[in-house]
Amino acid sequence: MASMYPPSLTALIEEFEKMPGIGHKSAVRLAFYVMGITDEKARRLADAVLNAKSSIRLCESCQNLTDSSPCGICSDPRRDRGVICVVESPKDLVAMEKTREYKGLYHVLHGAISPMDGVSPEDIKVKELMSRLGPEVEEVIMATNPTVEGEATAMYIARLIKPMGIKITRIAHGIPVGGDIEFADEMTLARAMEGRREI
Amino acid sequence: MASMYPPSLTALIEEFEKMPGIGHKSAVRLAFYVMGITDEKARRLADAVLNAKSSIRLCESCQNLTDSSPCGICSDPRRDRGVICVVESPKDLVAMEKTREYKGLYHVLHGAISPMDGVSPEDIKVKELMSRLGPEVEEVIMATNPTVEGEATAMYIARLIKPMGIKITRIAHGIPVGGDIEFADEMTLARAMEGRREI
Repeated sequence: MASMYPPSLTALIEEFEKMPGIGHKSAVRLAFYVMGITDEKARRLADAVLNAKSSIRLCESCQNLTDSSPCGICSDPRRDRGVICVVESPKDLVAMEKTREYKGLYHVLHGAISPMDGVSPEDIKVKELMSRLGPEVEEVIMATNPTVEGEATAMYIARLIKPMGIKITRIAHGIPVGGDIEFADEMTLARAMEGRREI
Repeated sequence: MASMYPPSLTALIEEFEKMPGIGHKSAVRLAFYVMGITDEKARRLADAVLNAKSSIRLCESCQNLTDSSPCGICSDPRRDRGVICVVESPKDLVAMEKTREYKGLYHVLHGAISPMDGVSPEDIKVKELMSRLGPEVEEVIMATNPTVEGEATAMYIARLIKPMGIKITRIAHGIPVGGDIEFADEMTLARAMEGRREI
């Protein structure tokens, strides 16, 4: 059934419907929001889309999204250049930064190895990681997700790096802080037991 | 805390966060969606926003959103010009059209009278409705929402129109089709009893 909204409004609804997590009703609501804002605000929204597309690229070093390459973290003299934390996505990097605990550098893979989905090591930023591993690098922390793909990726990269004599570590898995042992899945509990430390 | 994303990405996230029903996490997800689509598709999204803003206006007759005035419904010779169904919003009109039952014209008020929210009759399209009520109009159907504001608006407009000798009706309220009497609220049930018909 053809949309009962005017063509240009229908076109906007359809653009919003393409977005992740936006169904038809949400798309209609968003399109009506656009109808209701001032021309200037609509222009700002459209410009933000185009600006982000044109100015965001990958940092030549860590492959994180950035407006200027090398990125703010890679060019920050206060960061420890001896440690590289490897994550799957820019969102993981942001989550890590929010802890304010980590002071080293990052490397964003933009994915994880997944033969099932046709993602091989060449499809993610493994080559770029290897080319960064100069003599100043002492440790590479694998902070890929605790999924089959994340684990496989961590293992794959560990095998490549080990022969270079660089320490390679994996972040700990276990019961989340505030989590309930009763409701933890078996894998998480097994990992928590395995990773136990003396207190 | 400043965003940990590059400025132009942060700007895009902030634009999405202004949208109704879009929280921070959804805004980040949408911004990453934009990062992931082609330049051409991003351009199409931005253009859809600007196009909809520039080409959508209100139909000079029924006040519905349209690309061309008078709108498709008002200029359709098959529609019955003797009946005008008054709704609060373009979305209500679309809901009504989907029933495929109604063959008359519409009038979109763009709101409902609400002294509490400072919405007076002059703030909605009442004047425009009154100016349409020529001799060909036989019935005005008030299809405003069954809320305090919707009822007040229906009553206000009914009082204006009654002296003109035009039939004015209100859509029926009652138990929704497929609804459960057990769970109906008292107001709805009272309305359903009041509106009962012989079978």
